[in-house]
Amino acid sequence: MRVWHDEVVRPDGAPGIYGVIHFANVAVGVVALDDAGRILLVGQHRYTLDAYSWELPEGGVNPGEDPLGGAQRELLEETGYRAAEWRELLRFTTSNSIADETGVLFVATGLTAGVAQPDGTEELAVRWLAFDEALAMVDRGEITDAISQIGLLRVALERAADGR
Amino acid sequence: MRVWHDEVVRPDGAPGIYGVIHFANVAVGVVALDDAGRILLVGQHRYTLDAYSWELPEGGVNPGEDPLGGAQRELLEETGYRAAEWRELLRFTTSNSIADETGVLFVATGLTAGVAQPDGTEELAVRWLAFDEALAMVDRGEITDAISQIGLLRVALERAADGR
Repeated sequence: MRVWHDEVVRPDGAPGIYGVIHFANVAVGVVALDDAGRILLVGQHRYTLDAYSWELPEGGVNPGEDPLGGAQRELLEETGYRAAEWRELLRFTTSNSIADETGVLFVATGLTAGVAQPDGTEELAVRWLAFDEALAMVDRGEITDAISQIGLLRVALERAADGR
Repeated sequence: MRVWHDEVVRPDGAPGIYGVIHFANVAVGVVALDDAGRILLVGQHRYTLDAYSWELPEGGVNPGEDPLGGAQRELLEETGYRAAEWRELLRFTTSNSIADETGVLFVATGLTAGVAQPDGTEELAVRWLAFDEALAMVDRGEITDAISQIGLLRVALERAADGR
């Protein structure tokens, strides 16, 4: 992550300085669903907010990976699960007034359990939850992470269209 | 906006450095709806992404303002509209792996038109769109801004629950 400051001409013609926080990695998030309609959430203390946060499995794409490969690796590392089916759900930008971070959400199904491989900077809890309960956590302010909210809300809309 | 680096003990006991991008202002976004179910979108070139972006009216809360006051001011400045009814929709955090930015989304109805007052750093287009068309822009990758996606998807879910 780097911070740039560029001298520019503003739309009104005056000189200005724009700061851009440059993200080296694309963000990925995974809506991992089992056949019973449950969703996999990951809990961790977020240092930035000094708060415990329940979220989708998420992370950054490594150099040389594509977003799908990064999503598959993050799901495996954080939860131990592999998925047979993957589909892209949505692309997004997180803080476009000051940062160039982009991200991709995937839906993963056909899950098989394995052993999680968190790195040393992460202390993670993993939890299966009924999908509607996870959605209720968004409304109760218990899931605040934007990427998680987008993934949960977009899939909730699909489920509503299917009459679930 | 400031960047902090803190020396910490990681969960695995090893020393580590956490960087936190500190945001001085809470973000606000407004889902502004008219009686015909149309939504107000704002278009602008986003310097960070070097791309044109259609979004909800959004901005940062000024010192001394509460989020509702900031949302009302941003809607007025960017679009010229005032709203008779306001309700809080959702709270969120944008990039919690590296930043402490938080935000609040509101739904604004009972709109009356006035004169927009963009500041010198903004060159904005304003557009009314059928709500479902704005939602389709999310799915087509034409609305990528996370705050806008959360607001649109959350209201879409309300509309689905109401059978619209």
